[in-house]
Amino acid sequence: MPKPYSFPLDFITGHVDMSHGGGGKAMAQLITELFTQHFDNTWLQQQNDQAVLTLPPGRVAISTDSHVISPLFFPGGDIGSLAVHGTVNDVAMSGAKPLYITAGFIIEEGFPLAELKRIVISMANAAVQAGTPIVTGDTKVVESGKADGVFITTTGIGVIPDGVHISGDQAQPGCAVLVSGSIGDHGVAVMASRENLTFQTRILSDSAALNGLVADMVAVAPTALRCLRDPTRGGLATSLNELANQSGVGIVINEAPLPIKAEVKAACEILGLDPLYVANEGKLVCVCDANAADALLTVMRNHPLGRDAALIGEVIADPHHFVQMNTAFGGRRIVDWPVGEQLPRIC
Amino acid sequence: MPKPYSFPLDFITGHVDMSHGGGGKAMAQLITELFTQHFDNTWLQQQNDQAVLTLPPGRVAISTDSHVISPLFFPGGDIGSLAVHGTVNDVAMSGAKPLYITAGFIIEEGFPLAELKRIVISMANAAVQAGTPIVTGDTKVVESGKADGVFITTTGIGVIPDGVHISGDQAQPGCAVLVSGSIGDHGVAVMASRENLTFQTRILSDSAALNGLVADMVAVAPTALRCLRDPTRGGLATSLNELANQSGVGIVINEAPLPIKAEVKAACEILGLDPLYVANEGKLVCVCDANAADALLTVMRNHPLGRDAALIGEVIADPHHFVQMNTAFGGRRIVDWPVGEQLPRIC
Repeated sequence: MPKPYSFPLDFITGHVDMSHGGGGKAMAQLITELFTQHFDNTWLQQQNDQAVLTLPPGRVAISTDSHVISPLFFPGGDIGSLAVHGTVNDVAMSGAKPLYITAGFIIEEGFPLAELKRIVISMANAAVQAGTPIVTGDTKVVESGKADGVFITTTGIGVIPDGVHISGDQAQPGCAVLVSGSIGDHGVAVMASRENLTFQTRILSDSAALNGLVADMVAVAPTALRCLRDPTRGGLATSLNELANQSGVGIVINEAPLPIKAEVKAACEILGLDPLYVANEGKLVCVCDANAADALLTVMRNHPLGRDAALIGEVIADPHHFVQMNTAFGGRRIVDWPVGEQLPRIC
Repeated sequence: MPKPYSFPLDFITGHVDMSHGGGGKAMAQLITELFTQHFDNTWLQQQNDQAVLTLPPGRVAISTDSHVISPLFFPGGDIGSLAVHGTVNDVAMSGAKPLYITAGFIIEEGFPLAELKRIVISMANAAVQAGTPIVTGDTKVVESGKADGVFITTTGIGVIPDGVHISGDQAQPGCAVLVSGSIGDHGVAVMASRENLTFQTRILSDSAALNGLVADMVAVAPTALRCLRDPTRGGLATSLNELANQSGVGIVINEAPLPIKAEVKAACEILGLDPLYVANEGKLVCVCDANAADALLTVMRNHPLGRDAALIGEVIADPHHFVQMNTAFGGRRIVDWPVGEQLPRIC
């Protein structure tokens, strides 16, 4: 496409202005020099308002997440990588192989083009790693003070292997409950960064695409996998309560085997947080037939993102659909839904 | 699902607060009592983080648009109906039959629940009319002053009939250029509402889902249809320039047959706008083989959304890819890309 404008964008000192969302020359330039450049793929190069894809046969999983995290850059990631990981993971939690992503940007007037470029490159890298090209998108600009830097909404689409039926309503008494690794890393990393807390060991977000891990789990136990969920906002406690409610069961977990990094535990004490309620962006909770738990734990621990996978509890019959925890001290307590907002804008 | 909370939301005097985006009880309540209630469908009721769909065989079209229109309610529509129409239309412009929609909401803390409900109901009605259920979504809340009421990002997915190959790069010299009706209605309705202008005839946005019209056009001329585009931001002038650039051709349109309502023309004069650059949300421009133009115009005029369809020009060979207009006074002028932003936040 011949460029309908003359000067390249200034990605060092330039800023986004209202014209970049106006549909004219300036927007075409931003799309060509930034988005198409870095999200480089044949669908975007077609420059249509939609992407045309060929999907393999099978049931299709689709998921959308709007990302409003603050700050935009945090230890272990940024809003760009997070927007890919969050949506890839939501698609993968159906057992699907995520295939494509779309992205809608809402940008505040005056946002530095250098930061936008950093976000777009990070997003592009995350998409390549996850194997999910960003095939179409949209850019809107709102006046200064009407947004907060950048918001990114991503939609992911994937195809579910035949015979796989993973859903939040499939947990049954007797099932095992597994987590793929340490909990609370993402929320604590973001909070520590907001509060300017420093620890001896730097706490990094666990933000990562879990589709490879899920594919390994599906391969070893295609029918024994019942529920998968990534415990993001509201943390593990919320995901377990959701699953208990959807399936009409109770869940009992054990505190002792629950993987929590020492530095995350320490930071939670300082910040007054309960790690059970702190967001994760690279972990999953899995409910499976009890006899498949060992095989699943083995493949999970063989995957870089499941090295600390653990059996943490079991599903029980419970008309109240409570989530309970056997504490390290020998007691048992209810792990309730969070009522309000422990950590605003964590994803 | 048993309700994990006690009191119904107050949709008369209540407001959205940060907890409604927190992933806990308050968010579950907002989803159950508002979104699932009005977007009523089996996919949402499954309460998973993704929807699982069965698509008919064929190539899949997918499109995403973020909507940031101001004001949220305007003559002839609101951000909810617009978010459905905009995305349904982008999918339909590939010739696809749009099938499903996803929605990501970014809501400003303090936003009245009554207005949110009005938007959600409008969105639900638009989705029913378009035949595209809203199957999954996400809700985020940001602090007061960090957004502007509500932003809605929708993604649409559809399937393209076999043998249909509509794309912006398919225009060839000799092709005819059609529009489906009067131009500029949406942008002028929104601007008049912003500026509190009143005219003898109230100007309404043309916001509408064009998938029915496109289906009729595809049925009568499946292979003669070459390009379809909905001239939103930047108006007809921008869409024509995009098509000329993508296809590597020139386009010449005629001012005389261009359908523009008298009141829109008058408002444009008062507001200092050129209707060629004003946004539409229920119109399409079509490039087709010249010998199919009459048949297409006939089916378009038989559809309620194409009653004023007109042949407005033709595609020519032009190494500069210019769009030109034969004016009503007998001259010819270049219809250039808009450089900046004529009407910010029009969609």
